[in-house]
Amino acid sequence: MAAPIALIQGASRGLGLAFCKHILNNKPLASVVATCRNPNGADELRGLVGQHPDRLTVLKLDVNQEEDIRGAAERVKEAFGRLDLLVNSSAMLHPSGKGETSLRDVSAQGIISTLTTNTVGPLVMAKYFSPLLLKGSGGFGQQPSEKAKQHSGIIINITAKVGSIGDNGLGGWYSYRMSKAALNMATRNLSIELGRSRPKVVCVSLHPGTVNTDLSRPYHKNVPKDKLFSSEHSVNCLMSIINSLSIEKTGKAYSWDGAELPW
Amino acid sequence: MAAPIALIQGASRGLGLAFCKHILNNKPLASVVATCRNPNGADELRGLVGQHPDRLTVLKLDVNQEEDIRGAAERVKEAFGRLDLLVNSSAMLHPSGKGETSLRDVSAQGIISTLTTNTVGPLVMAKYFSPLLLKGSGGFGQQPSEKAKQHSGIIINITAKVGSIGDNGLGGWYSYRMSKAALNMATRNLSIELGRSRPKVVCVSLHPGTVNTDLSRPYHKNVPKDKLFSSEHSVNCLMSIINSLSIEKTGKAYSWDGAELPW
Ligand SMILES: NC(=O)c1ccc[n+]([C@@H]2O[C@H](COP(=O)([O-])OP(=O)(O)OC[C@H]3O[C@@H](n4cnc5c(N)ncnc54)[C@H](OP(=O)(O)O)[C@@H]3O)[C@@H](O)[C@H]2O)c1
Ligand SMILES: NC(=O)c1ccc[n+]([C@@H]2O[C@H](COP(=O)([O-])OP(=O)(O)OC[C@H]3O[C@@H](n4cnc5c(N)ncnc54)[C@H](OP(=O)(O)O)[C@@H]3O)[C@@H](O)[C@H]2O)c1
Repeated sequence: MAAPIALIQGASRGLGLAFCKHILNNKPLASVVATCRNPNGADELRGLVGQHPDRLTVLKLDVNQEEDIRGAAERVKEAFGRLDLLVNSSAMLHPSGKGETSLRDVSAQGIISTLTTNTVGPLVMAKYFSPLLLKGSGGFGQQPSEKAKQHSGIIINITAKVGSIGDNGLGGWYSYRMSKAALNMATRNLSIELGRSRPKVVCVSLHPGTVNTDLSRPYHKNVPKDKLFSSEHSVNCLMSIINSLSIEKTGKAYSWDGAELPW
Repeated sequence: MAAPIALIQGASRGLGLAFCKHILNNKPLASVVATCRNPNGADELRGLVGQHPDRLTVLKLDVNQEEDIRGAAERVKEAFGRLDLLVNSSAMLHPSGKGETSLRDVSAQGIISTLTTNTVGPLVMAKYFSPLLLKGSGGFGQQPSEKAKQHSGIIINITAKVGSIGDNGLGGWYSYRMSKAALNMATRNLSIELGRSRPKVVCVSLHPGTVNTDLSRPYHKNVPKDKLFSSEHSVNCLMSIINSLSIEKTGKAYSWDGAELPW
């Protein structure tokens, strides 16, 4: 069995960094490619390379730059020729760091930046990495015995519960909510296109819970302590979902506890 | 009772133009403000002004230009001081004129352009026109007798059935589907924010069916004749939904036949 290969996009901090650590610690044979837009500034990630020099590679990738994505896919192709897991983790609430509380805060430029990073980036990642995922060895998830139902790779788009249109009872956070709703549509479309091929690539959206990271920091004071997950805990939960994935579960959005989220 | 005032955004052709005609012909007291990005090139619309010089005003508005939107809102404020109905009709399938059939056709620039026109534009319209809609006279829709439930204005975002994530069984058309899913989230958010205020503004997404316009032209040959609506027929159906709207129906997506669409 070939060694599993995972690529974590948005790995400088927060959940992306925790995904790298988790896989390095829990999948002793796996190789991890960690991408971030400024490797020199990503101290923790560089420390991790010091601990796992043979298993962790860091590549510069700004998800807003299609050329960076194309280049990273070239590098992974040369080094490994395939990919088993792609996690799109990078995102922002809004360029200001806070979601819009009302229409007053909405600007065309703010929405466009948020959509570009949170939605367009992950889809363009899928475009360039799907050929490698289609050549994957299926090293993550569950493989049913029936060959026609096996998958070669998995794409995880990190979504958010506030990106569920049906679940939206509070409003606000226009840019972020819209970016995650559109990302969920991308997930659904990817699951269809890549579920038709043989071998298949599984694609789901995952909500990590409310996690103690920079992204949610402005709102931590409103979150009851037991509802604010550490990134390690959240990634533990998400990895157990990922480990259970098969083509039967593709094209949906799941919360950290495995519950399906409404669109 | 004050004369109803409607603004149709994207009125040069297709459904937007048909909305203008319908309201001018069926609401004899109503005034219509028609916006389009190139009034000089909009021959049919200019012909309509010739027929209804006192009731139809054309304003230049490129929905990608926040300044155009702000300026048009200023003009409507000066002329009328309020607004009863805003219809966001403009959209494109993709800058190429055809939806992506597969990931191969996906480009960052194509998605960003589509999202900017189809999603960001309508939300920025809502931002600048909601103060006028909050001052509207409720001239469209049904007013319940209970004062607290009455609405002053209505926002219609023209969506598409292919923008429903749950209904998506075929895939493809990445940019267009994602733009309409995100637009549906905008509708939901608007319905919440503007449903809290008093008076209230109703906001829904409407799917016009498959309509014989330039947008769908590349696909007409695949549509059975009785399933391809004229824009007049589609707008007839949509206006009867609009005429039935009240705050009870806000925040949802409806098809031309009144059926609720899943998110
Ligand atoms: N934290 C929560 O409570 C929560 C809840 C629901 C969903 N989520 C989702 O979880 C995911 C991870 O968020 P987090 O909480 O870990 O946030 P975070 O700690 O703020 O990390 C955000 C990451 O995104 C990266 N990033 C931003 N723009 C980028 C770009 N243009 N190109 C490449 N990378 C970029 C950042 O890189 P730099 O270091 O270079 O800035 C950083 O690594 C996001 O998708 C978020 O929406 C989080
Ligand atoms: N036709 C269908 O089968 C169908 C099905 C489902 C949903 N829809 C939706 O129905 C709505 C109307 O579409 P349609 O069928 O009437 O299409 P259409 O005949 O192609 O008209 C598109 C309109 O959008 C305008 N537009 C494009 N970009 C613009 C911009 N940046 N600023 C301002 N206006 C812009 C065009 O103006 P110019 O003349 O200046 O180009 C034109 O008036 C759209 O939201 C579409 O998604 C249509």
